Amino acid sequence: MPVINAVSTLKSISERKPLVHHITNWVTINDAAQITRHWGALPVMAHAKEEVAEMVGLASALVLNIGTLTLDLIESMLIAAHAANTKPIPVVLDAVGAGATKLRTEQAHRLLSECRIDILKGNAGEIATLAGVEAEVRGVESISVGGDTPAVVKSLAKRLGNVVAATGAVYYVSNGKKVLAVENGHPIMGRVVGTGCISSSTVGCFVSVGDDYLRLTAEALASFGYAGELAASKCDGPGTFLGALYNQIIGIVANPGSLKLKVKEV
Amino acid sequence: MPVINAVSTLKSISERKPLVHHITNWVTINDAAQITRHWGALPVMAHAKEEVAEMVGLASALVLNIGTLTLDLIESMLIAAHAANTKPIPVVLDAVGAGATKLRTEQAHRLLSECRIDILKGNAGEIATLAGVEAEVRGVESISVGGDTPAVVKSLAKRLGNVVAATGAVYYVSNGKKVLAVENGHPIMGRVVGTGCISSSTVGCFVSVGDDYLRLTAEALASFGYAGELAASKCDGPGTFLGALYNQIIGIVANPGSLKLKVKEV
Amino acid sequence: MPVINAVSTLKSISERKPLVHHITNWVTINDAAQITRHWGALPVMAHAKEEVAEMVGLASALVLNIGTLTLDLIESMLIAAHAANTKPIPVVLDAVGAGATKLRTEQAHRLLSECRIDILKGNAGEIATLAGVEAEVRGVESISVGGDTPAVVKSLAKRLGNVVAATGAVYYVSNGKKVLAVENGHPIMGRVVGTGCISSSTVGCFVSVGDDYLRLTAEALASFGYAGELAASKCDGPGTFLGALYNQIIGIVANPGSLKLKVKEV
Repeated sequence: MPVINAVSTLKSISERKPLVHHITNWVTINDAAQITRHWGALPVMAHAKEEVAEMVGLASALVLNIGTLTLDLIESMLIAAHAANTKPIPVVLDAVGAGATKLRTEQAHRLLSECRIDILKGNAGEIATLAGVEAEVRGVESISVGGDTPAVVKSLAKRLGNVVAATGAVYYVSNGKKVLAVENGHPIMGRVVGTGCISSSTVGCFVSVGDDYLRLTAEALASFGYAGELAASKCDGPGTFLGALYNQIIGIVANPGSLKLKVKEV
Repeated sequence: MPVINAVSTLKSISERKPLVHHITNWVTINDAAQITRHWGALPVMAHAKEEVAEMVGLASALVLNIGTLTLDLIESMLIAAHAANTKPIPVVLDAVGAGATKLRTEQAHRLLSECRIDILKGNAGEIATLAGVEAEVRGVESISVGGDTPAVVKSLAKRLGNVVAATGAVYYVSNGKKVLAVENGHPIMGRVVGTGCISSSTVGCFVSVGDDYLRLTAEALASFGYAGELAASKCDGPGTFLGALYNQIIGIVANPGSLKLKVKEV
Repeated sequence: MPVINAVSTLKSISERKPLVHHITNWVTINDAAQITRHWGALPVMAHAKEEVAEMVGLASALVLNIGTLTLDLIESMLIAAHAANTKPIPVVLDAVGAGATKLRTEQAHRLLSECRIDILKGNAGEIATLAGVEAEVRGVESISVGGDTPAVVKSLAKRLGNVVAATGAVYYVSNGKKVLAVENGHPIMGRVVGTGCISSSTVGCFVSVGDDYLRLTAEALASFGYAGELAASKCDGPGTFLGALYNQIIGIVANPGSLKLKVKEV
């Protein structure tokens, strides 16, 4: 099991201020930018076909999210990803809604086949769908999964040759060899729209400063979950959770040694 | 006058977790999703022409909002509404800005004529415009209305054969036969961008679990207004109102019997 | 140096409720609308080519922001700006990301050359880029500027024949003759996504009620910065700053005499 502490990762983010380029959905685009800024990175949201290749060239990570996809936006994602793929710029894909409609499933597969996705993320139902395992995805929520999530994550990562992460009460992250279970988090996070999307932005920030994507993805999700644990006790409910979360992240970035990460190999 | 208590409606939403499909504006899209989730339903925002018919087929209600319309987005709305119309999936239209520009007025009329809109919602000026009554709509705000709003709402509902709701200090809801006045609410709600849009999402959640749209729309607006009354006393001003509102909704959903709804037939 | 107090300006906004038409980015569109409403003006976000000329005709100011530009959106901006230019409707351009990509730099220049931009705003790097001075813009952040910002702002305003404002720890505003330094503000504002965008919306509100754009722009930025000073002490961190800012603005609008503006000619 890799050493997980996130301290040096967070220091690197603060020092380097990496640009994290997002082509994302219109629902959570503001939160994706806010959380990126709060981790100490610099967000940029840019989707014009004429600029995405140039913009991603300035960036240290690319985060794609198909939550409000159109075919036009997928074209921009492909251009950006191809540009990222010519350099050591990691590409994160959040496959929001894969399994809910044919379009989302097909376009997620298309992104996975036409370019290199370094980290694929989704809820258990979305990941199961992309692994060819039966699942029910209602809109953007995972309702049921036919298989065992750690095994599904591992086999999909092995097949894709990348890192796959499934979110839920426990996050599972695999590179096809190992599976890490991340047990940080709080149930309130499931009641707030956008926690999945901003956890992907968090992954984008963390993988932007290193190349051990398995460890960095686990660090990201564990740090995110830990911030959520702290924020849950600071807010009056899910309606004020995100603001509290961002404030807790500021505290964590100022004092990374305070992180209590619960990650184990399963 | 129908019995209005919203208790069984809220329990149904919590139990069934209905999917509420939105094709909405880019200003309040996050709030529309948040409030839907807080009422216990599942939001999905999807506007690609290639998927809206399939997505709405999974949904229990469709909420359309023309706040940042384009002709392209209207096409997606028509496809989704036509698909909803083949099933008992209620369609809510928030006619944001009708009366402000020719495009908005025309496209609202187009949606009303080319598909079945089960619940039409707008501020007094927007509804008056669509009823052919003189009104001034400045951007998305109702400045003045030539006619008597309850009468306008009733006659428009009668003509359209659906439910029409006009928002303002008092909400008026009619099915063309009865007019219900909903007196819950608080003046602070008029100082926050998006309260109109999220009241439409609330209507979408409520009508997703039944077929008495007059009663359910009144329940929705009254419950929304009541949550606003509670939130007004919990926040430090309009800038922190929405977070407080969502937290109050969580409390109401946990204890629907606490609702004090002010609805009367006028 | 002009007299800067903003009292009469804020009273005019409250009395007239001017419509401030935005064609803006999808990241901060909600915040742009919220802050406009909190200053007492009426926001409208509309970008369909078929309606922007009509909508801006109802408005008292037009705010353009290229933060998530596409060529299509630039076309809408040009149509709206041309319509505004036929009347005394001031046009504000926030050149978000100019200097980061060729597209953004070119399209900002295009807007400046093809229509009348009354107030050009950007961070120091964006403004330097448009002035032809070397600068590094990483995404939407100004990293370094080769020249002296007050001098750059002045010479660019002189060349363009308009008002130019550069944001940073100190805001510099010039009409090509004078340069005003606005020293209100708080460092926390640099840690929150969207403060630049909403300061532009604030400028839109202020210039909508008068024609001395140099003074009104300085009043706007100073009032915005002062609200930020107050909000910084009322929030628990950047994650809850914006809500606190909006609440402070409500207090300022209710009592404009409380403003303590720090503006001097440099």
